Amino acid sequence: MPQIKTIAFDADDTLWVNEPIFTKTRLQYEEILSSYFEIDESLELKLYAVEKRNLALFGYGIKGFMLSMIESAIELTESKISGADIQRIIDLGKEMLTHPIEILPGIVETIEQLKSNYQLLIITKGDLWDQETKIARSGIADLFDHIEIVSEKTPIAYQAILDRYQIEPSTFLMIGNSLKSDILPVCEIGGNAVHIPFHDTWVHEKMDAHQISEVKFTELSDIRDLMAYLRR
Amino acid sequence: MPQIKTIAFDADDTLWVNEPIFTKTRLQYEEILSSYFEIDESLELKLYAVEKRNLALFGYGIKGFMLSMIESAIELTESKISGADIQRIIDLGKEMLTHPIEILPGIVETIEQLKSNYQLLIITKGDLWDQETKIARSGIADLFDHIEIVSEKTPIAYQAILDRYQIEPSTFLMIGNSLKSDILPVCEIGGNAVHIPFHDTWVHEKMDAHQISEVKFTELSDIRDLMAYLRR
Repeated sequence: MPQIKTIAFDADDTLWVNEPIFTKTRLQYEEILSSYFEIDESLELKLYAVEKRNLALFGYGIKGFMLSMIESAIELTESKISGADIQRIIDLGKEMLTHPIEILPGIVETIEQLKSNYQLLIITKGDLWDQETKIARSGIADLFDHIEIVSEKTPIAYQAILDRYQIEPSTFLMIGNSLKSDILPVCEIGGNAVHIPFHDTWVHEKMDAHQISEVKFTELSDIRDLMAYLRR
Repeated sequence: MPQIKTIAFDADDTLWVNEPIFTKTRLQYEEILSSYFEIDESLELKLYAVEKRNLALFGYGIKGFMLSMIESAIELTESKISGADIQRIIDLGKEMLTHPIEILPGIVETIEQLKSNYQLLIITKGDLWDQETKIARSGIADLFDHIEIVSEKTPIAYQAILDRYQIEPSTFLMIGNSLKSDILPVCEIGGNAVHIPFHDTWVHEKMDAHQISEVKFTELSDIRDLMAYLRR
């Protein structure tokens, strides 16, 4: 392994819990809709179809998710949903926006160990406001040298960040839970990547193993194994 | 005037038309609500009250505006609004998100004249996705050296941008239509500012003249007067 000088962390489901908050909200949403029709497994896919359709317009983030929940609810109830239930959906989203940030186990001690030897970044995608307020609420922003919020984690977006801080790709290591957003684009520009899977993954970020069989990266099951990996 | 080396432009209602799109949408929104109750001037203020209440949760941008329109509609109709009308409100927001970008008169020629002698920036606040797609659709992004999207235009946010590009405040000039966001915070950190008023201003950005009587900045009525101002 080349000499790593900069380590960047994805935020959602790498530094802190995120997808389970969406999962919990989807269940509460289904409960609201259950007074209109019988809920089955297809509902989640129908909601995702609306989210996916709206992604090019809304981008990632909770506000877009709220609008897609409302739109999907109108579609699925054939416009019968009441104003009061739409408000309940909005309130679910507002709860998400103020949800306490739960830092994942091992993160703080690992980052404190890395701090003196590496330049540390957060690179996260999504809604600027959501991400900034989450970073502020996380209480760990000060542990990082730079924080970068991008609208989409493309190879070009990563390259722009590396250029901005004059980071050589071979000395750069990205750590994240999404093969699609954290691993593939970084390997594509010649960087290094460590995948730490999270138990709950949004269908949009899921990827088949055969799609990445050509890509060289490391998988760790726990952030606490990172120090040993770096010493190798 | 000190030697200006960097000129930064606000985007919405400085480079291109923005607030009139919101104004038009508010009128269409009132039309939807007019089948529930009699519309008067108070409606705009009631909608703004909801927007303002939600600002700390949603931040700026069209998606937050859409959610506030929906929430205000539910409130004002005492939950009687139909699912079909909520969908019409969502569709109004979607139209805003794909609205053609109308560059303001004089902008392109002025920026082309400035380009060889100054470092040029766009500094805009708001939703990352909205702003990035607008900048892409504007067709003028390539005329600028750097584009910065911030969630709020505070003195700290401006200072961070100046630090990032090692810009001395006294050599920095900000141009924009909002006294609150483009002029005051820049003057506060020792930068220069030119105010170019726009005929349509969101109530949230409005400011009384007495609040800024102590602040030194220049007002121009037209961007085409900028070259003469810089030569002074």
